[in-house]
Amino acid sequence: MQLTQGLHRSLQLNPDRVVTVFRDRRRTYREFADRVARLAGALQALGMAAGDRVGMLALNSDRYLEYAMAVWWGGGVMNPVNIRWSVPEIVYSLDDCDTRILIVDDHFLHMADGISATARHAPVVIHAGDGPAPDGMLSFETLIADAAPVPDAARGYDDLAIVMYTGGTTGFPKGVEQTHMSLWCGSIQRMADLPPLRGGSALHASPFFHIAAFTRVVAQFIAGEQHVILPMFDAAQVLETIERERVTEIAFVPTMIQMLIQHPDFTRRDLSSVRRLGYGASPFNAAVLERTLEQFPGVEFVHSYGLTETMIVASNPPENHGKAARERGLHLSVGRAGYGLSVRIVDREGNEVPRGTVGELIVRGASVTRRYWNKPEETAKAFRNGWMHTGDGAYMDAEGHIFIVDRIKDMIVSGGENVYSAEVENAMGRHPAVAMCAAIGIPSEAWGEAVHAVVVLRPGMTATAEDIREHCRTLIAGYKCPKTVEFRSELPLSGTGKVLKRDLRAPYWSGKDRAVH
Amino acid sequence: MQLTQGLHRSLQLNPDRVVTVFRDRRRTYREFADRVARLAGALQALGMAAGDRVGMLALNSDRYLEYAMAVWWGGGVMNPVNIRWSVPEIVYSLDDCDTRILIVDDHFLHMADGISATARHAPVVIHAGDGPAPDGMLSFETLIADAAPVPDAARGYDDLAIVMYTGGTTGFPKGVEQTHMSLWCGSIQRMADLPPLRGGSALHASPFFHIAAFTRVVAQFIAGEQHVILPMFDAAQVLETIERERVTEIAFVPTMIQMLIQHPDFTRRDLSSVRRLGYGASPFNAAVLERTLEQFPGVEFVHSYGLTETMIVASNPPENHGKAARERGLHLSVGRAGYGLSVRIVDREGNEVPRGTVGELIVRGASVTRRYWNKPEETAKAFRNGWMHTGDGAYMDAEGHIFIVDRIKDMIVSGGENVYSAEVENAMGRHPAVAMCAAIGIPSEAWGEAVHAVVVLRPGMTATAEDIREHCRTLIAGYKCPKTVEFRSELPLSGTGKVLKRDLRAPYWSGKDRAVH
Repeated sequence: MQLTQGLHRSLQLNPDRVVTVFRDRRRTYREFADRVARLAGALQALGMAAGDRVGMLALNSDRYLEYAMAVWWGGGVMNPVNIRWSVPEIVYSLDDCDTRILIVDDHFLHMADGISATARHAPVVIHAGDGPAPDGMLSFETLIADAAPVPDAARGYDDLAIVMYTGGTTGFPKGVEQTHMSLWCGSIQRMADLPPLRGGSALHASPFFHIAAFTRVVAQFIAGEQHVILPMFDAAQVLETIERERVTEIAFVPTMIQMLIQHPDFTRRDLSSVRRLGYGASPFNAAVLERTLEQFPGVEFVHSYGLTETMIVASNPPENHGKAARERGLHLSVGRAGYGLSVRIVDREGNEVPRGTVGELIVRGASVTRRYWNKPEETAKAFRNGWMHTGDGAYMDAEGHIFIVDRIKDMIVSGGENVYSAEVENAMGRHPAVAMCAAIGIPSEAWGEAVHAVVVLRPGMTATAEDIREHCRTLIAGYKCPKTVEFRSELPLSGTGKVLKRDLRAPYWSGKDRAVH
Repeated sequence: MQLTQGLHRSLQLNPDRVVTVFRDRRRTYREFADRVARLAGALQALGMAAGDRVGMLALNSDRYLEYAMAVWWGGGVMNPVNIRWSVPEIVYSLDDCDTRILIVDDHFLHMADGISATARHAPVVIHAGDGPAPDGMLSFETLIADAAPVPDAARGYDDLAIVMYTGGTTGFPKGVEQTHMSLWCGSIQRMADLPPLRGGSALHASPFFHIAAFTRVVAQFIAGEQHVILPMFDAAQVLETIERERVTEIAFVPTMIQMLIQHPDFTRRDLSSVRRLGYGASPFNAAVLERTLEQFPGVEFVHSYGLTETMIVASNPPENHGKAARERGLHLSVGRAGYGLSVRIVDREGNEVPRGTVGELIVRGASVTRRYWNKPEETAKAFRNGWMHTGDGAYMDAEGHIFIVDRIKDMIVSGGENVYSAEVENAMGRHPAVAMCAAIGIPSEAWGEAVHAVVVLRPGMTATAEDIREHCRTLIAGYKCPKTVEFRSELPLSGTGKVLKRDLRAPYWSGKDRAVH
């Protein structure tokens, strides 16, 4: 089950099929595998020994997939770099992971000097571009042209395949280890749950460094199907590409889907090849979902829920998007545990809570990471009795449908009632003057914790604290509405754009006994 | 990925679904899991420690599946007994495997004393029946009633799950080791290739001790679907059961399917629930396949090829059974390598042969056994460079379709041409007077090897050697026809009913340099 197996199988069964489409470049499996075997040889010649990490800092391209397969083919370990990070964050992860070879594309070339200057070991930098490599860098294309192909290192299933960095809202980023086995199992069990589309073509427009896109990459290689790659999300390009390449499968976050529908090209392009639309990050609300379904008649909608640490845990299948299911609210669920995955909802002591009760979602299965790279304490915190603790607050209905309500640490307990910050934020967010907002729990003698809101208003618009509270009361129960509202010009954000609630909470809890997180 | 995982998942998602149907007994997942947890406790109390083997010698029943899950739940290893074996063969396997607990049903009760008397360690015998247990035996039902449920031992993925005995045509039977991981991977990769039928019900009428039936058992548990169980194949019962239980999926060998079609009940029963018909052991010839397809309109036909050592290697999918595919001969193929499996056709030196050339089929993948139990020499012989050598002679066409032609060791090289004994036997077998036959290679100065036939005639019928040769010449090329024909009253058979060609060849090759096998 080493992760190059699907590539070998395709080389045997469909060598002349086009595997990657990027701009005007189309590579067959035969060409792709030849480039991979050469790049693997070049990486070995540059010092990549078995188990060594190789990074890539780049937008999506066919070369990104060549990098993935070549690292594995040569016996190395991928360390894809978060493209949303600043130089110091990138350097932290490369140092932590001891990554000595880094591939950089034109888009991120400007960061290369800064990385080399500050990394503990200045990496060998490979320029993945079409022109000649800048001074001091090697050329991806020249390496491939000059290297001799090497045989597949055929790593074992327990060997490390990738270290993906995650987090950033609670301290340093953590490297999530996935082995050849865990990535393969996470993909194949998903394929059993949601069969690959034969002869299909998957559009990749979300960044490959992230597990959401990368899971689709691995599955598509196991299945021996086709990758159509865009450097990043761009509504016009997505629509044009679907039409041109007769794409069968797309996957986005809900806001991107709205951007597609609202684009003037949406009705002009032929999207009839699309058979499946995957989405993640958050469910649709009923009204938006209904409108979206109307725009994609006959297309299967599937929501996926997972973490870098677990891969896909649950899928909300097409049938939970239909009218009858929507009336039961099932479209707001993330679905039921997939094949091969065990899910429980537990209280702080680790005991399962009754159905309908919120607790922490914990996961066990072959696709779950074995540990964080170099972080035994974080590993011990996340794993108890073999179960990965996700930090997500969720409940399960009588039929096993899972509903995610909030991050556990962001939940507020006020007057003995659970208040989910996400629910309060959704309510506030619907006020026309609110640009961004966060709901946190602050100490209260009367209530234990009280709901406190921090709000950024849209430029040129105004609202009072009482306006916000009044607005919330029309949408959610009184005990969930903010008791106090504070206006700011901006909110503290993490590298991936998440609000750092820890920083918002800290001043209120200084010297008190709540863990601020 | 321990193999009880699917049971836990079903217990959470569908506790009141019926999981096993046997005669008039129907058990829900809740009842089934409760019985399993109790039986696991009873087995532990009888001395089953982690990794200990437990045998079962029985026709199919719901209790067989309780045995499987209870052994795993309790941390043990299954050692299902071949129901076609004699007492000495059974004792050999129990001794070899050091199996100290044996479950026996009423059908095989008469063998229990002989086993206990001759086994190295007389096993604890558990009687799986409805009445009271015979003297000296424990009662399956009493054990379950009296034992307290124990928690799942939650074995690791590399732990042994089952030892299945195979072979017998070349010396002692060999115990094939499969771990929790290899059985799970073999099942889940098959499910990705051939999606489980949701809400489906699989009919089991082939013996559970064999990998063919057992693969379906494991997959159906991972998927959380239903098992409808018959003690053994009986055409009338199969037809009645399909109608009564609205079975969605059936699987047989081709001769059984012919028995179903020829049965008077075939046209009287409502078989419209059937959506998939799996078959194995051998392909259909075109005429029979065409007639069979007509009898099952709208049903997916899927042929599976595999070994105990590999689980399913390749499937010939429904589309290779259609008219256009039949005209290309694809219905005679076993299909292409499944997801996650690597297949090569190699010569004696291990080099891949060109497409269309016959060689030995070798396999690599997560579902392949790691070794034979206690047989390092056999293991070393079967595994070279990580590839399992199947002993099957096969070729691959340009598109990767695999055609099995013969066991490698049964192939005859005559005048520089390969002759496949199976092809010669098929031709001879169509002569009306031939009851059984075998084609072997014997030494020939002119041809290297010459095709020699050993024939058993039907009672009361006659044919001469020249009649047989004449008949063959109308069906196959001259060089493939037997040069000599020998008549006997019977052929030497193995425990599983295979002709022991080794014994037929031995007298001819004594003192010569061909390995007789």
